[in-house]
Amino acid sequence: MLTTVFPYDSVELSSNGREVIILDQSLLPNQEKFLHLTTAEQVFFAITLMKVRGAPAIGIAAAFGLAMTINRSKCRELDLFEKEFLRTKRYLYISRPTAINLMWALDRMEDCFYRVKNSIDDTDQTVIDIIKNALIAEARSIKVEETRMSVAIAENGISLLTHGCGILTHCNAGHLAVSRYGTALSPIYLAHQKGYSPMVYVNETRPLLQGARLTAYELMRAGIDVTLICDNMASIVMSQKRVDSVFVGCDRIAANGDVANKVGTSGLAILAKHYGVPFYVFGPSSTIDFNCASGRDIVIEERPSYEITDMYFSKPIAPKGTKVFNPSFDITPAELITGIVTEKGIFKPEEISKVK
Amino acid sequence: MLTTVFPYDSVELSSNGREVIILDQSLLPNQEKFLHLTTAEQVFFAITLMKVRGAPAIGIAAAFGLAMTINRSKCRELDLFEKEFLRTKRYLYISRPTAINLMWALDRMEDCFYRVKNSIDDTDQTVIDIIKNALIAEARSIKVEETRMSVAIAENGISLLTHGCGILTHCNAGHLAVSRYGTALSPIYLAHQKGYSPMVYVNETRPLLQGARLTAYELMRAGIDVTLICDNMASIVMSQKRVDSVFVGCDRIAANGDVANKVGTSGLAILAKHYGVPFYVFGPSSTIDFNCASGRDIVIEERPSYEITDMYFSKPIAPKGTKVFNPSFDITPAELITGIVTEKGIFKPEEISKVK
Repeated sequence: MLTTVFPYDSVELSSNGREVIILDQSLLPNQEKFLHLTTAEQVFFAITLMKVRGAPAIGIAAAFGLAMTINRSKCRELDLFEKEFLRTKRYLYISRPTAINLMWALDRMEDCFYRVKNSIDDTDQTVIDIIKNALIAEARSIKVEETRMSVAIAENGISLLTHGCGILTHCNAGHLAVSRYGTALSPIYLAHQKGYSPMVYVNETRPLLQGARLTAYELMRAGIDVTLICDNMASIVMSQKRVDSVFVGCDRIAANGDVANKVGTSGLAILAKHYGVPFYVFGPSSTIDFNCASGRDIVIEERPSYEITDMYFSKPIAPKGTKVFNPSFDITPAELITGIVTEKGIFKPEEISKVK
Repeated sequence: MLTTVFPYDSVELSSNGREVIILDQSLLPNQEKFLHLTTAEQVFFAITLMKVRGAPAIGIAAAFGLAMTINRSKCRELDLFEKEFLRTKRYLYISRPTAINLMWALDRMEDCFYRVKNSIDDTDQTVIDIIKNALIAEARSIKVEETRMSVAIAENGISLLTHGCGILTHCNAGHLAVSRYGTALSPIYLAHQKGYSPMVYVNETRPLLQGARLTAYELMRAGIDVTLICDNMASIVMSQKRVDSVFVGCDRIAANGDVANKVGTSGLAILAKHYGVPFYVFGPSSTIDFNCASGRDIVIEERPSYEITDMYFSKPIAPKGTKVFNPSFDITPAELITGIVTEKGIFKPEEISKVK
């Protein structure tokens, strides 16, 4: 069993269910600041502005946000309460377009709502409170399951690691992105605990630098050997045989095994194929979108130009008015992926629909 | 004939030969500041700290730096004068290890020194002044030839462009990197002048952001359609068929056609091959190192970690003490290169030694 890497989780629901508490990932690694969110708007902007990010963490934050908002509702009429629930759910649903976990978690909350509502007599004066409590419990279950999932992924993924092995990773698919140990990083934490001494090369991951700011931060904090590189150095790292595998997370897996993940992932997969380096994608089965036939059906979020030209910099890095293309994700075709590691086992990408 | 894009050159020698005047590229795009360098040390650090960069510009700066330093020498004894020349040459020789133009230009200055010295009677009281003047003339010739070279490269490279074509480029191989029009960017300037309306995607080029700071700056200033991307977005740009070719410069070409260029170039070439996008390298024939059999023989400069973690940022982007791998260049194998465009024509990489 994995020991806890951090003294805190990146997303929490307060014990009274009235606050969503998140570690503001936009301030890392220079400041560890927790935000106490008390409205759906605050949760929406925490997700949109990537104060909380990582597909599983976004799902948990959205579920907590919905449960918290509804728990705070003063509405005492079931019809209006139901409308408030659905309005809040639809609102949070569009906070980010690519991560399937967001929609998955919110749909699950809606299922919970109607399951409870339909199971009790709606003339019961306490029905609203019963639903509120059920939603809080459901949201907490999602987090517990994601944590168990990350442990199972670690246990499945450890077979891909050997003593002193080198791993290249992109963006952040670790503790901060998930509820506890992460997806792509979870077997690395387990390997570290078992004394394998893994060496991890981390792509800084422009434009928002999640690799430098978050992955280097959490791995170093756990005592793991980390080397930071710029994204364009992955080719020389592979050519010099510094890494044995590439491990990445994912934001959505299509039914045919195509994967949407942080922009740059598809390029890494092409390099890995060129150099003969195995390329593994890690994600819970909740990341699989069976309604999505292939990567072509996945909407790719485009984000604002200031993320590239101004954010994090002391001065703008490009002339004023420079046109920018800033897609947040790209699609890695199934044929470039060696295996997809889920809590249910390691699958060939073309067999991912067997998980169903 | 190309018209002049800029009202100034990135490297100049003052008319009296006593100052090397460079545009400080480390301050662009926010500030256009010219430095007046009057010692070999100042020239050395301008090269090392990349205030002047780009293989041809480095060669010109080094030749000007050597001519300027020697021109300022107060030495009146030929033996001591010769020692001072050789000491200064050796000193500037190591200011950057990868760009062959640096060594090529300084070796050419040394040839000039001995050609003049051996051609005149060394009891002549004016021999030192004659050598000084010859060195200044030689350094100016290098620059004139590089300018002619960039026009010839433009004229050879224009055949690779069509109306409305999309080009992806990396780092800066333009006006700022060369004496006037650049290498990889020179046919783009010519195409723009001919009304082709080229659309240029520019990799920001971490860590020193030469793409964002310099290439976007000089192309926009010339009125060319520029779109800035992060380096890890090249794959999605190619997958969406936004570009027809990749154009890059080079710092050294081995006799077998392997090319050393800004880190990330080899990865771009692998992506281009994967997506079936032609990949062209642009450089003057002075960039070919016939003493270097293959890319394996090229020393890859590693630069300090603060370039990745701190430079340009308002706060460090990685935890204190993060280990960093910061190679400045990588090697693109000949088999990934569609063609090498020189002032003498377009060559298949395996035929580059025919240029000799």
